[in-house]
Amino acid sequence: MTNQPETLNWLDRGTSEIFPNQPQSKNPEENLTQLLAKSDRPLRIKLGIDPTGSEIHLGHSIPFRKLRAFQDAGHTAVVIIGDFTAQIGDPTGKSEVRKQLTPQQVKSNAEDYLNQLRPILDFDTPGRLEIRYNSEWLSQLNLSDILQLLGTMTVGQMLAKEGFAQRYEQENPIYLHEFLYPLMQGYDSVAIDADVELGGTDQKFNIAVGRDLQRFFGKKPQFGLLLPLLLGTDGVQKMSKSLNNYVGLREDALSMYSKLEKTPDAVIKDYFELLTNLPLDQIPSNPRDAQKLLALEVVSQFHGVEAAKSAQKAAQDLVQGGSTASADAVPEFSLSEIEFPAKLFYILNASGLCSSSGEGRRQIQGGAVRLDGDRITEVDLTFESPEDLKDKVLQVGKKKFVRLVL
Amino acid sequence: MTNQPETLNWLDRGTSEIFPNQPQSKNPEENLTQLLAKSDRPLRIKLGIDPTGSEIHLGHSIPFRKLRAFQDAGHTAVVIIGDFTAQIGDPTGKSEVRKQLTPQQVKSNAEDYLNQLRPILDFDTPGRLEIRYNSEWLSQLNLSDILQLLGTMTVGQMLAKEGFAQRYEQENPIYLHEFLYPLMQGYDSVAIDADVELGGTDQKFNIAVGRDLQRFFGKKPQFGLLLPLLLGTDGVQKMSKSLNNYVGLREDALSMYSKLEKTPDAVIKDYFELLTNLPLDQIPSNPRDAQKLLALEVVSQFHGVEAAKSAQKAAQDLVQGGSTASADAVPEFSLSEIEFPAKLFYILNASGLCSSSGEGRRQIQGGAVRLDGDRITEVDLTFESPEDLKDKVLQVGKKKFVRLVL
Repeated sequence: MTNQPETLNWLDRGTSEIFPNQPQSKNPEENLTQLLAKSDRPLRIKLGIDPTGSEIHLGHSIPFRKLRAFQDAGHTAVVIIGDFTAQIGDPTGKSEVRKQLTPQQVKSNAEDYLNQLRPILDFDTPGRLEIRYNSEWLSQLNLSDILQLLGTMTVGQMLAKEGFAQRYEQENPIYLHEFLYPLMQGYDSVAIDADVELGGTDQKFNIAVGRDLQRFFGKKPQFGLLLPLLLGTDGVQKMSKSLNNYVGLREDALSMYSKLEKTPDAVIKDYFELLTNLPLDQIPSNPRDAQKLLALEVVSQFHGVEAAKSAQKAAQDLVQGGSTASADAVPEFSLSEIEFPAKLFYILNASGLCSSSGEGRRQIQGGAVRLDGDRITEVDLTFESPEDLKDKVLQVGKKKFVRLVL
Repeated sequence: MTNQPETLNWLDRGTSEIFPNQPQSKNPEENLTQLLAKSDRPLRIKLGIDPTGSEIHLGHSIPFRKLRAFQDAGHTAVVIIGDFTAQIGDPTGKSEVRKQLTPQQVKSNAEDYLNQLRPILDFDTPGRLEIRYNSEWLSQLNLSDILQLLGTMTVGQMLAKEGFAQRYEQENPIYLHEFLYPLMQGYDSVAIDADVELGGTDQKFNIAVGRDLQRFFGKKPQFGLLLPLLLGTDGVQKMSKSLNNYVGLREDALSMYSKLEKTPDAVIKDYFELLTNLPLDQIPSNPRDAQKLLALEVVSQFHGVEAAKSAQKAAQDLVQGGSTASADAVPEFSLSEIEFPAKLFYILNASGLCSSSGEGRRQIQGGAVRLDGDRITEVDLTFESPEDLKDKVLQVGKKKFVRLVL
């Protein structure tokens, strides 16, 4: 990738690994740069998603941003909805993640997932996006096909896979059907003729299985392009909803902005590289300026430049109107003053966010009330215990916040 | 099985193991004797065969003799032809045994196999025999069914299976599809509602998988009835064609008789127990008498009492006409006297079995010539080298033999 640094910058930006990768080779089968330069047709870039219905966050957006870069270079994004496994769930019933979904649930989850990606992917340019449900081909496989798929790998190879190796050593049960999942994901690549598959660094094994299966079926093996897992806003752990260190793609501009303008030093360079297209040498040297630029850039992608600027201004107002000069100063309200169970509209009044319970009800009805960024619409929402609200930010409109504490 | 020893003698005779087995239990789910006594319908007794087209021998006949005992007690033998795997072969192409067969080959092999069993099984009494091809249900399975099957077992359980454990330890590749074979055999039990499955002692794992799958599908789990592997006529190794220590079910009466009347002391009691229905306390104490009785009994099963007696007489004549008094004295003819390649009719003349090459041709045409028990019908059969004939018995009619030596 040394021969065309300007045009191919987008390929390497934020990329952990491309495989195979023989940078000196002119062979488009072992050098993706060569393939991109020489291909006389749009390449087919695969990315799979699990339609299990979770809200997605900036961490999920990373491979989709790379997918968009391929789209912008004229290639076809092929998004695979993993509806097949979602519809059968986990045969052992042991996995929460693999609980069985109806085709309707899968479809609505998939649509919801894709809608959250509208600001990132190019949905409109003809030929740039293909959305495929893998039940299309997986449900057609019979026992003889599956024996063939299984016959391409040995137990030793499968147990060498990270995760399996560990579980086997620790004598945690690995159910046999789990061995089929990498093969099914790999077969998706056969079915859609993938030229490149994108995934997190934890996907290397599965993407390599796809290469093997493509070869087995007489097709050209895909490249793997691996992307790092994004650290959360705590700068320490992987971004995840359960750790509450995430920025959801659905959050409003102010909520996004407020989180991102506190991005820790440790990860700010990664965030610029992975979440924006800004040249990295343009990152301001003043940390506070860098945080604000990052927040403005990312919020602009999802809400537009105007809304991003308003969010920036609102956040500044909030700081100036607050009791301290710190950027993360959100006034606190102690739940110990309230008797539980308690209605939300009562808490709105008690905390001073609304002037009465009646105004609290009206604000909920009007859609102005959010709890940790999630819009609340149930007027009579009741909480059983202060624990349910601990450390959450309750918000009315764009400017009024309190952090609920015990 | 202590409460009805007379009637159930047939069940225990020659049986290595029945599982589950709680002899004191009155519960027909854990005591097969109870199930046999209490069932108000014929039980379904499963035995699977591999239609790979091999000639079968007395070793193969053991589970079929037990199957016949169940038939005689009023139960239904369900013979499963494993046509599904025979038709797909081994996806890795690594196994000779699992080479791919056409449906025609499978059908003809299966018919040939069953024909060899006509003297043993009851083919005629209505309701006593069901012949099923497992492609009937296995070809209907889709990926979702198979994930379910695989989800019933863990990698650890599968690797604990004899054979797999060893191969895994020695780092010999185990292909993933091999894990499906026990599950497929087990699913056969689900499909045909087996009450009992018969098999060699090496089948315990697979039969137990069948129990698990029946439970998984909400059915009553089968019993396993395991039978020993028969030692060969050398009294040392497992009977097998490749070790040439076997008695084929297709051999003529004299050939069978001659082999069996030399049964070594070490195995004669097992042979009586496994290959005849004679009360074991009636085995003659004189070893020579025991050998003759065994030979007569077994030959009678396949060729009738008359033919068995004739074979006994012919064998005696052979001994008396020979140069020594030993029972295994077959005259020898040295192939060193012949120039190779050589026509068989020429060898018939040279060895003195026929008075001329012309008579040799006529005897071949008439079907009277056998080589190691196999009838020869090709008049111009030519042998390239004396090695091809070394230590084989060449025979014309029932009385004329020579052993060909180098």
